[in-house]
Amino acid sequence: MRGTLIYGPRDVRSEERDDPEIITATDAIIRISATCVCGSDLWPYRGIEAVSEPTPMGHEYVGIVEEVGSEVRTVKPGQFVVGSFFASDNTCEICRAGYQSRCVHAEPMGRIGTQAEFARIPLADGTLVATPEVPDDDLVPSLLAASDVLGTGWFAAVAAEAGPGKTVAVVGDGAVGLLGVLAAKRLGAERIIAMSRHEPRQRLATEFGATDIVSERGDEGVARIKDLTNGLGAHSVIEAVGTQESMMQAIRATRAGGHVGYVGVAHDVQLPGDELFFSAAHLHGGPAPVRRFLPELIGLICNREIDPGKVFDLDLPLADAAEGYRAMDERRSIKALLRP
Amino acid sequence: MRGTLIYGPRDVRSEERDDPEIITATDAIIRISATCVCGSDLWPYRGIEAVSEPTPMGHEYVGIVEEVGSEVRTVKPGQFVVGSFFASDNTCEICRAGYQSRCVHAEPMGRIGTQAEFARIPLADGTLVATPEVPDDDLVPSLLAASDVLGTGWFAAVAAEAGPGKTVAVVGDGAVGLLGVLAAKRLGAERIIAMSRHEPRQRLATEFGATDIVSERGDEGVARIKDLTNGLGAHSVIEAVGTQESMMQAIRATRAGGHVGYVGVAHDVQLPGDELFFSAAHLHGGPAPVRRFLPELIGLICNREIDPGKVFDLDLPLADAAEGYRAMDERRSIKALLRP
Repeated sequence: MRGTLIYGPRDVRSEERDDPEIITATDAIIRISATCVCGSDLWPYRGIEAVSEPTPMGHEYVGIVEEVGSEVRTVKPGQFVVGSFFASDNTCEICRAGYQSRCVHAEPMGRIGTQAEFARIPLADGTLVATPEVPDDDLVPSLLAASDVLGTGWFAAVAAEAGPGKTVAVVGDGAVGLLGVLAAKRLGAERIIAMSRHEPRQRLATEFGATDIVSERGDEGVARIKDLTNGLGAHSVIEAVGTQESMMQAIRATRAGGHVGYVGVAHDVQLPGDELFFSAAHLHGGPAPVRRFLPELIGLICNREIDPGKVFDLDLPLADAAEGYRAMDERRSIKALLRP
Repeated sequence: MRGTLIYGPRDVRSEERDDPEIITATDAIIRISATCVCGSDLWPYRGIEAVSEPTPMGHEYVGIVEEVGSEVRTVKPGQFVVGSFFASDNTCEICRAGYQSRCVHAEPMGRIGTQAEFARIPLADGTLVATPEVPDDDLVPSLLAASDVLGTGWFAAVAAEAGPGKTVAVVGDGAVGLLGVLAAKRLGAERIIAMSRHEPRQRLATEFGATDIVSERGDEGVARIKDLTNGLGAHSVIEAVGTQESMMQAIRATRAGGHVGYVGVAHDVQLPGDELFFSAAHLHGGPAPVRRFLPELIGLICNREIDPGKVFDLDLPLADAAEGYRAMDERRSIKALLRP
């Protein structure tokens, strides 16, 4: 089959790989309908995460079940399924508490590499959620978004306790930040402030429900958020970048007693304990337990109540994966969809 | 009047100070019935916080109202009152959300110095809570505890979401940690693991409701907590120290999706973003909004349902404040009560 590998910084290749096979009786094999490039894929692409050998890429996916292991009970060949970037059993104590991304048997799908024609999905019963029927083609991008960026933005909004009466600020205008806006809107937030300096992203944020746009960053951005909130800061702040600057911007933009939901994968971040202490903010985040939200999100998408697929502004054949990485790296594209 | 000042590291003196006066119409003057030495007072005592000039000490207090300003409505002379270490208006948006320690008009009582015979209490209507009647003498230590250490331990337990079905671990066996145990018990926690290597403190922790004692610290302490929780970590962890080691011990002892409530005043703490991210824990803390809990805590104490005053194992005349500091510094005393 065709698959995508990274060889080193800015060196992504589409190559022939072995077809995956059932290894464990709880595995399934799916034929990928659509996959995509994640903001987190840009860390190794930019050389910020080391790549020591050719490594399969991709952890977002939707597709049709081809084959299941002998112990798989809840999904079957022919079904259209959505999974998340961590395989999870969905039965352990951590999963039952809603933290499937930290399942005691969690397996990162990034190691498998879903930017490919087929993928082996471990713990298929726990990991995969089937749609009621094979969806119309135009729903596929939104269902693919549910696999990571929507689920992650949603978790960030839930972690930030976005809801009725709340002012929510969103740090980061990538696909996750934009879908954090959409999630905050669906959760009933009164006011949603998107922090973005890129006009096409500002437009999409507004379309998803942002009521205000703040183009300043850092201390100036924080000052603008305070201006908009009687000097107090936002009730809820979504952090969707993962740098020192963005984390501090998020914490400082939050009012005392407010909530920061952070989902940007932290790189070289050190949070100063004294400032965090006196902020009196709540901090919650981490790798999003997307599986928790999949049934609800699939329902909203299949009922056409939300259209998160709009974050895909580039649609490429899988063979052109390298161009998807380039376009996102250069910020020519918010998010690139890849079709096998 | 007699008051306590710090001149520098390990140099605490009891001296004659001016009697306080009403400055603002919202002030009250109280005659201190009892005050005490706080763990946080040991930071300047040990030279970890700089002291540039002779500085009044103390921020915990109960007493009788002597005089009120012309705009004070809810407390009156003769009443026995409990306040917290931040004066707060209790009417602003932040106070109404339960974060009185971050009130937009907050004034730290430490600047006033309540280790004295009298104290001026700013924002008296918002800050002070009167007991139903002047309490019996034996209740005074517990009411004094409500002013800070009990309120802080209680907030930590609430921030850590201690409750029915939960396993709560407590890092720190000072008065706050011990009262965090008491709070977790009252909040219905199923299992309470006190981390302590001091036999008298272990005993008090057990008396307050601890079901398990772990004497190991750092990585070994974390391993013991995991052993006791099916390898997952505690649901709720109270951090009541404020060092790098204690914060990391708390975060690492918490299961994915669990809650850390941290109230130790952070000193030289830097939290690594990547570890925090993958912990998937909730983090909440800061200067405890003790005022939020005072009515409830005063009720429990006056009804003799809790006896937090047991943390005072040294009872001194105010004039001997220096000995209180020495005893706590040398860990001969958990907490020293001072009587004017």
